[in-house]
Formats: sequence, C-alpha cells, structure tokens
Amino acid sequence: MRSSSLGKMICTTARAVDVVGDPWTLMILKELFMGGKKFEHFQSFTGISPHLLSIRVKKLEHAGVVARRPYQKRPIRYEYLLTEKGIDLFPVIIAFKNWSERWIDWPDGPPVELRHRHCDHPTSPRLVCSHCQEPITARDIDYSISSAMSDERDAMRRAFVERKIRHPK
Amino acid sequence: MRSSSLGKMICTTARAVDVVGDPWTLMILKELFMGGKKFEHFQSFTGISPHLLSIRVKKLEHAGVVARRPYQKRPIRYEYLLTEKGIDLFPVIIAFKNWSERWIDWPDGPPVELRHRHCDHPTSPRLVCSHCQEPITARDIDYSISSAMSDERDAMRRAFVERKIRHPK
Repeated sequence: MRSSSLGKMICTTARAVDVVGDPWTLMILKELFMGGKKFEHFQSFTGISPHLLSIRVKKLEHAGVVARRPYQKRPIRYEYLLTEKGIDLFPVIIAFKNWSERWIDWPDGPPVELRHRHCDHPTSPRLVCSHCQEPITARDIDYSISSAMSDERDAMRRAFVERKIRHPK
Repeated sequence: MRSSSLGKMICTTARAVDVVGDPWTLMILKELFMGGKKFEHFQSFTGISPHLLSIRVKKLEHAGVVARRPYQKRPIRYEYLLTEKGIDLFPVIIAFKNWSERWIDWPDGPPVELRHRHCDHPTSPRLVCSHCQEPITARDIDYSISSAMSDERDAMRRAFVERKIRHPK
C-alpha cells in the first residue's frame, strides 16, 4: 500500500493524515494559525522549497483547508486563508504544542504563550470528555469500531497473510 | 532547509512534527492507541513496507515514544509499547479523529466510537481553556512569542531575503 491509499481507508486518522499529516503541511498550518497568509511568509518561516511548498498549498486548497484570494493585480498575487475546515484543525496544532512543551527541553522557556480572549488568561487548552467535562487521557477510553471498519481490517489482515505466504522473507 | 532541521527549531510544532509528523508514523501511533503492539500488526493495518516501518519504529523508540520489550525468546521477538511520552500524544490522534468525523463523509457512520470509562458515556473529547474551562477554538486565542523564537524568526526572514537577492527566480 502506498500512502496515497490512506485517503480511501475507513479510518479517521488515515483520512486526516492523508490531507495534513506531513511535516511541511503541518508547519504551513501552524504559520496559518499564527497569521501567515503569503507564499513567501510560509517559505521564510518553514524553510520549505518553493516547489514543495507549491504542491502542499495546492493540496490544502484542493482539500478545502485553505482558500486562495488575490491581494494584488499586476502581477496577480494570492494569499491563503484558513477556511472553516482549516480553522477546525487548530486542536492538531495545540496537541503538538502541548506535547512539545511537556516533553522537549526549552532552555529559554516555551516559545509561544496563548491567551484566551474570553477569560483573558494564559491558557494551555486541554482535552475533556464531551459528556462529563472531566479531563480525558488515552487511559480513560474504551473504543468500538464499526462493522465497515472491522470488515476492512479483516481484509487487510487477510491480504497481509497472503502476501507473507507468497513472499516469505 | 531540510525537514531534518525541524528538530532544532525554537518552535513547538517543528519539534513535535520532527518526531511524529509523517503519515506512517501517525498511522503507527493510531494502531498503538488501538492496542497494536507487534511489528506485523502495524504492517497489516497500515500497509507500510517492512523497511519503512522499521525506520519509523526505531525513530519512535529512539525518541522515547515507544519502548521495545521482548515477548518471545527463540527467535527473539519484540513488541512495542507506548511510554508516558507516547501516551501523551493521544490528543493528536483525537484531533485528527474529530476533524475527520466532522469534515469527511462516512456513509456507514463514523468508524470508531470512544467511551469514557469514568462516566461510562460515548465521548468526543474536545478542547477547553485550562483557566476558565470554556470550549476554545483558534478564534478565541491571542498569542505571544518568546524573544528566542522571535530572534530565530528574524534570522530566518533575513536568510530568506538574502537567498532571494542572490538567486532571484
């Protein structure tokens, strides 16, 4: 299977990472959340090559995560804005931020501080249960999978075993 | 800049995606959270080639996200378990899950249902402010960056402008 197959799987992670799950795309998203809009901004602050950046920005536009808007006529120049679908990726970047702050050593302190406008306090957004509002971690969760996902996983397992029989090491 | 430089940046996103921000690694993480432990399990349910899987699992082990434990002696076989550092990546996978459920069409319904053991209800974990406990989105946030991060960004911007002067298109 190639990573292009991820976009067809009955799996929420696969379908999301197919759109935004590579290092450069995640860096571009982070810059969008920090207010970056222009191609050269993304280039400056991620270090990505223009070619790779162009591919990724087009993919984000195609997926409806960003929308392109002209900001200059001659020559025509575009800026990129997060759509609702893009803004809704905020928890991904926050999850990376919280993890980095906890597990990586920052000799000069954490690089970014967030402030919640609503309460006007520094904030470190965290996950709570949508039902009881209590903090939630991987240890507090049971999960069940749909029959469609279960069927797909059975098929993947069978295909894997068949490949092994045909090509044993 | 190559993506290997991300691991040195004064940027929480860069440092996190340097460790886990590629499609396959995120798929492996998802399988670890679903209880997968063995190399062949990851192979079956992600479709990744043994070579690429081996590189990623070693990187996760080196980063302290998973720990390797022998489960069979002759021949020696290992399984992989999430460490505390790994378990703490749960919000990343949840963020992808929530986004996929909201923005991707699932004709047979969402593939995975989570249940919170604490309150014994279906749950869809969401982000709240750590101060006021209110739900939080990208629109509710102001941010400030440290002087170390600001200095690095100034240097990146200068380097970008100098490259442009030396190599205009």
